[in-house]
Amino acid sequence: MTTVDASTYDPARVVADLRALADRTGGPEGSRRLCWTPVWLEARALFRESLATLPVEIETDEAGNLWAYLRGERDDTVVVGSHLDSVPKGGWLDGALGVMAGVELIRALAAAGTPPVTVAVVDWADEEGARFGRSLFGSAAVVGSLDAAAAADLVDKEGNRLPDVIGEHGIQLDTIDGARTRLKNVKAYLEVHIEQGPVLEAKGLGICTVTGTKGIERERLIFKGQAAHSGTMPMEMRRDSFLAASRFALALAEIGRRNEGVTTIGHAQCWPGVVTAVPGETHVTMDMRHISHDGLATMFAEMKQAAAAAAVAEGCTVEFEHIFRIPPMPFHPRLLEAARESVREVEGHDVELPSGALHDASEMARKVPTVMIFSSSIAGLSHTKEEDTPDEHLYMAVDAFHRTCRRAIELVVAGEL
Amino acid sequence: MTTVDASTYDPARVVADLRALADRTGGPEGSRRLCWTPVWLEARALFRESLATLPVEIETDEAGNLWAYLRGERDDTVVVGSHLDSVPKGGWLDGALGVMAGVELIRALAAAGTPPVTVAVVDWADEEGARFGRSLFGSAAVVGSLDAAAAADLVDKEGNRLPDVIGEHGIQLDTIDGARTRLKNVKAYLEVHIEQGPVLEAKGLGICTVTGTKGIERERLIFKGQAAHSGTMPMEMRRDSFLAASRFALALAEIGRRNEGVTTIGHAQCWPGVVTAVPGETHVTMDMRHISHDGLATMFAEMKQAAAAAAVAEGCTVEFEHIFRIPPMPFHPRLLEAARESVREVEGHDVELPSGALHDASEMARKVPTVMIFSSSIAGLSHTKEEDTPDEHLYMAVDAFHRTCRRAIELVVAGEL
Repeated sequence: MTTVDASTYDPARVVADLRALADRTGGPEGSRRLCWTPVWLEARALFRESLATLPVEIETDEAGNLWAYLRGERDDTVVVGSHLDSVPKGGWLDGALGVMAGVELIRALAAAGTPPVTVAVVDWADEEGARFGRSLFGSAAVVGSLDAAAAADLVDKEGNRLPDVIGEHGIQLDTIDGARTRLKNVKAYLEVHIEQGPVLEAKGLGICTVTGTKGIERERLIFKGQAAHSGTMPMEMRRDSFLAASRFALALAEIGRRNEGVTTIGHAQCWPGVVTAVPGETHVTMDMRHISHDGLATMFAEMKQAAAAAAVAEGCTVEFEHIFRIPPMPFHPRLLEAARESVREVEGHDVELPSGALHDASEMARKVPTVMIFSSSIAGLSHTKEEDTPDEHLYMAVDAFHRTCRRAIELVVAGEL
Repeated sequence: MTTVDASTYDPARVVADLRALADRTGGPEGSRRLCWTPVWLEARALFRESLATLPVEIETDEAGNLWAYLRGERDDTVVVGSHLDSVPKGGWLDGALGVMAGVELIRALAAAGTPPVTVAVVDWADEEGARFGRSLFGSAAVVGSLDAAAAADLVDKEGNRLPDVIGEHGIQLDTIDGARTRLKNVKAYLEVHIEQGPVLEAKGLGICTVTGTKGIERERLIFKGQAAHSGTMPMEMRRDSFLAASRFALALAEIGRRNEGVTTIGHAQCWPGVVTAVPGETHVTMDMRHISHDGLATMFAEMKQAAAAAAVAEGCTVEFEHIFRIPPMPFHPRLLEAARESVREVEGHDVELPSGALHDASEMARKVPTVMIFSSSIAGLSHTKEEDTPDEHLYMAVDAFHRTCRRAIELVVAGEL
């Protein structure tokens, strides 16, 4: 049935490009491609060099995203990509895999002449949000979900304001909406990424189709009791906010397990926070993720009940501060079919996973038919210099990605996307 | 049976002295008598002024404790006192009550001529340890339990070294042992203090006998699991150190209740400590107190088991770092009898409590027959500007304290101490 021709596509070139990138922008403590820094610009320079001999138009949009267009027989466009920026002391594959796989796709298509549709590879700006806490910066701007007013107030640890830092790169928040024109004619978005989790490795697999990205709810919970002397306040008269938070933590984990989602308390702080005082106030952060709207809503409602019950059990109160929310982003049915076929061809199975991590694909899926392919991650590690994937799994991932892209082009040509 | 004559002892003068002290060394945010500061010296100046017309010998010892001796017919000495230093933003009564009640005792005794035994009032140096984290500094030096080598390494938040700061007050760590000669001839130590807890108020009482100070064990617990991405690590594959700490917290509270002691987690910190990461490492502080050696030992053993079980339940490990330990200090049987009789005379009951807080009496009880009297604390509050006690309870407390001191003098005269 398929007319996919992968003969000119060479996964080994992708891995070679990734190693060259690591040589130029990594170090003994890991990747240093923090967005809006000279090392990040160095990574983009390598990206441009890798495209230098190809018939592409390279453009930077109003949000700082870097685009390379291989013009096709029609304006309908298939976009592939990911991000070159990394967290400080990050891994060599997170984001970079998807960008370099896109470069190889352009190489293979260009070698065969003019493709039937336009194909673009994009390096999204500041996917990680590692400096200002606003992840998916560039992709959110392109789909119109970036809150520019909120972004204007962001400050990094050194006290630099986001508007000043992006201004040095020629980006203004009041013109950033111009990046939305990049979606014109875009019919599909595809991204290959490492799993950043341990599931594929545990299954003994190298790759899989990604069904979508999980929805996320993040809140800060403020348990308030009564600070007291740890020696003079009898147990039965205490209103211990840390005990309320501890009850909540165990209930929250159970909510995650029962609903087949994930729930996490990542940060906790007590006041006054000394060894000799019952904590009068304890703050914890809550992160929960689920692939379905209903599952996430159920977990959120159960979380609120559990927090109230934990507070009451210790004579405390609880308040909530909203941090972040994004709905589940299921990927496109026709592109999921294409990805499944490709994974089956490459590794011979139908395993698929939802992504627990956010990706630029989460933003693009709001507006454009989208799909992703995962490679395995050794020990599930990411955002650390230990991040790695067996070469054979990287080869399989870019192979399956390439096959899915070919199928996406065919679907666009057939008017099915 | 008793020959106590309280006719010349005026509790109202004690409260008046305390209010004068608060006027000179307090403020809108509470007491400012942090040890080794000008305001603390100002409090000591008031103490000296209050003794100015009395036939006392005032001396500062090698540890910075300030003594006023009313010489008696014999060298056998009864010591009373407490501390004028406070925590920053502290209360007006904590420590100051015991010192000013001692001044009034000297006044009353001196008015009656030469007492049968020598009586001294002492203002202990740096009871709170609020600046360098070493509480009971002066009283520990006098009984020989101060570790001078450890004290030499202490630094305050501004980076000042303890040896430099006490040096400005004429105190040298290498001669501090000289303060131990102060114990010569001392036959009894008595201290009146606010409860700093809510128990007397809850019982509707103003005062009580204190049976001793609770023993304390303090440890830092380090739960180690595996840091992971909060979105990509399935619940069943996690090793979440904060969940281990939460299990431990609930078990520790149960250990306190079951053994009629108190147990507290006052501080918790997670690493990496961000909303998007499963905590790979969580530290908590553990403070536990019990009035009996056996009770404290039982709680400590149960705590260790509970920590190990909590760690195992979450696939984690746990390590312990020792912070502090002091054994229970039961007070002297004959002085307890004297205190009970006095409390019965003043408020008509036999209620007694162990002290959950440490006091200079905890140090003195190591070497000298000791007892304490408590007044109530409104809402159990202390170490805050809200610290307060109804005047009538202060009157009763200093009255019972005075009667107990008179009885202690009689016991010394009778050779029973």
